Amino acid sequence: MNQRMEAVKEWLNQNTIDAALITAPENVFYLSGYLSNPHERLLALAVFQDAEPFLVVPKMEAAEAKESGWDAEIIGYTDIEDPWEQIKQSVENRSLTIKRIAIEKEHMNVERYEKVNVVFSVPEFVSAEEKLRQLRMIKTEEEMMKIREACRLADYAIEVGVSEINEGKTEMEILAAIEFELKKAGINEMSFSTMVLTGKNAASPHGTPGTTKVQRGDLVLFDLGVVYEGYCSDITRTVAYGDINDKQREIYETVLRAQETAVTASLAGTSCSEIDLTARRLIAEKGYGDYFPHRLGHGLGISVHEYPSLTETNPLILRPGMVYTIEPGIYVPNVAGVRIEDDILITENGFEVLTKYPKTLQIIK
Amino acid sequence: MNQRMEAVKEWLNQNTIDAALITAPENVFYLSGYLSNPHERLLALAVFQDAEPFLVVPKMEAAEAKESGWDAEIIGYTDIEDPWEQIKQSVENRSLTIKRIAIEKEHMNVERYEKVNVVFSVPEFVSAEEKLRQLRMIKTEEEMMKIREACRLADYAIEVGVSEINEGKTEMEILAAIEFELKKAGINEMSFSTMVLTGKNAASPHGTPGTTKVQRGDLVLFDLGVVYEGYCSDITRTVAYGDINDKQREIYETVLRAQETAVTASLAGTSCSEIDLTARRLIAEKGYGDYFPHRLGHGLGISVHEYPSLTETNPLILRPGMVYTIEPGIYVPNVAGVRIEDDILITENGFEVLTKYPKTLQIIK
Repeated sequence: MNQRMEAVKEWLNQNTIDAALITAPENVFYLSGYLSNPHERLLALAVFQDAEPFLVVPKMEAAEAKESGWDAEIIGYTDIEDPWEQIKQSVENRSLTIKRIAIEKEHMNVERYEKVNVVFSVPEFVSAEEKLRQLRMIKTEEEMMKIREACRLADYAIEVGVSEINEGKTEMEILAAIEFELKKAGINEMSFSTMVLTGKNAASPHGTPGTTKVQRGDLVLFDLGVVYEGYCSDITRTVAYGDINDKQREIYETVLRAQETAVTASLAGTSCSEIDLTARRLIAEKGYGDYFPHRLGHGLGISVHEYPSLTETNPLILRPGMVYTIEPGIYVPNVAGVRIEDDILITENGFEVLTKYPKTLQIIK
Repeated sequence: MNQRMEAVKEWLNQNTIDAALITAPENVFYLSGYLSNPHERLLALAVFQDAEPFLVVPKMEAAEAKESGWDAEIIGYTDIEDPWEQIKQSVENRSLTIKRIAIEKEHMNVERYEKVNVVFSVPEFVSAEEKLRQLRMIKTEEEMMKIREACRLADYAIEVGVSEINEGKTEMEILAAIEFELKKAGINEMSFSTMVLTGKNAASPHGTPGTTKVQRGDLVLFDLGVVYEGYCSDITRTVAYGDINDKQREIYETVLRAQETAVTASLAGTSCSEIDLTARRLIAEKGYGDYFPHRLGHGLGISVHEYPSLTETNPLILRPGMVYTIEPGIYVPNVAGVRIEDDILITENGFEVLTKYPKTLQIIK
């Protein structure tokens, strides 16, 4: 935690920025260790080049914030107090003048921006987002452990989902069974809305789970993730219910080969675009290039979508500590929709596949 | 739908505002009829005093937007196109100059704000939020029907939850069973994270459902809501598991009496503060004033929290078509936590209680 704050302070120093006011809950969590989402109420972390940082939270969360391990100043405000007045005061107490300030421009709303303009006499604004994305991209050992556990639970969720497939069951019934079992295991939060799609629905890039029943000859697609201690996993598996035809099988095998080849290519020193193209070329060679309309994958951690982005044009070089998904897919309307996704960690000597549910074509009888 | 757009156009006209650029998904839905949440991608509705409005959506959603009934211009942009360029072009096509523009200051982020500043040469900004809250506060017949159905499903959810209470069951197990049954009924979305709290957890204003087991002598609190066709319900019920003591019973009866009295006082022409105080005084008279730390209720509709706000200081007068919750609660640490909540619709001649699950103290044996 301390190291992360030091990195931000160093960045402020190098760029002659007087302060960073961080308000996105995931970035506050990353830097302070305090995980909270107070919705419309203000949560903020102020970081300075040299002075002591401070955390701003709704008063009823102040004790929790302290318990989370944050040992610098905490400003707790009630619903009838103006937190901006207290922020101004705390900055003045540090004898600081804020002329240049870093904020998250994609997160801060105009109302707060206008407040910052008043409180700090119209400072110059700089975006803090790119720096934070860069920092969050390389995971620590502790973060890796949490993602591993989130992945283990995602494997379990797929196992539950597959075991629920049965004649006449609807997508929503299977989905409900998955989340029921996870909730019983104490899992409160999914990384995103769980997807269970069968047959034609899986073949549409825009399917949402509904009351369609699984039928023999369908490919059933599961896409889901679990949040464990603030960290996300993300897995996709596609399985067959009953016998499928040759075309469906060819599509499955093509996706699987592309996915496994891209996983194997995941080595430090390789670029994101190379990994994407490895899979994309294999799919194109089989004639399905037009049916793979999305990027190969995305980084994940505190957010389910973060850096690095695995697109065919991203020159970024993979480094140890990066965690991302590899999830090629082929969607041929009225024929088949298949996607297979694993979470990968780049290590010093290679890679670790964090999601472990089997990928060989599984035919549920 | 048309009437809502007319109301915004009239407001622009009266306040000499050249355009409103609406980007909060719930407000776009309210005005255009198109319900979507494209997350980090831009969704926007441009409204002008006289010129034709237009809707901006990610290209892959353009067909859906048209199907939803929107019959004016739709701008669909791909991930490699800049929607702001297209917005600028569409405004120029209408031969309009934007000098004063209404935006949602609590929703629009700084990055977009800077774009608007570039595209429209630093216009004057006005907040559109208050006007939209006022409009959304009075529901149409069609909206009432949707909220009624959301309430019917919330009643069903409580019924499921109560039937699941049993020795040794955990809060999360009961919660999972509720959402399982709702998902099987095709309900995809809850209004907020479902709460099931038992015993001491219900008595803390900050409880989150966990692995605590229900025990005889506990009061078990359910707080949940269902989203039906874009509209929310919100209900709370508290039931006893096994025999409870006199203190718990007194607290229950005090909350119930306060709740029912406030419901009965819900008549057009009364102020929000009067309704709040009706309940608050009854609770204070019984000596529990310090244990009722929140407002009496809040409006609901497309959002689970909207206008009107039932606080002890809000002078707003109730009018037919308003929908809000009445949810007094008493939380005495280590003794009991009780909250009872209904959704109320103000009618021409009185009120309609939309949530109907019984409120008489229920003792599960």
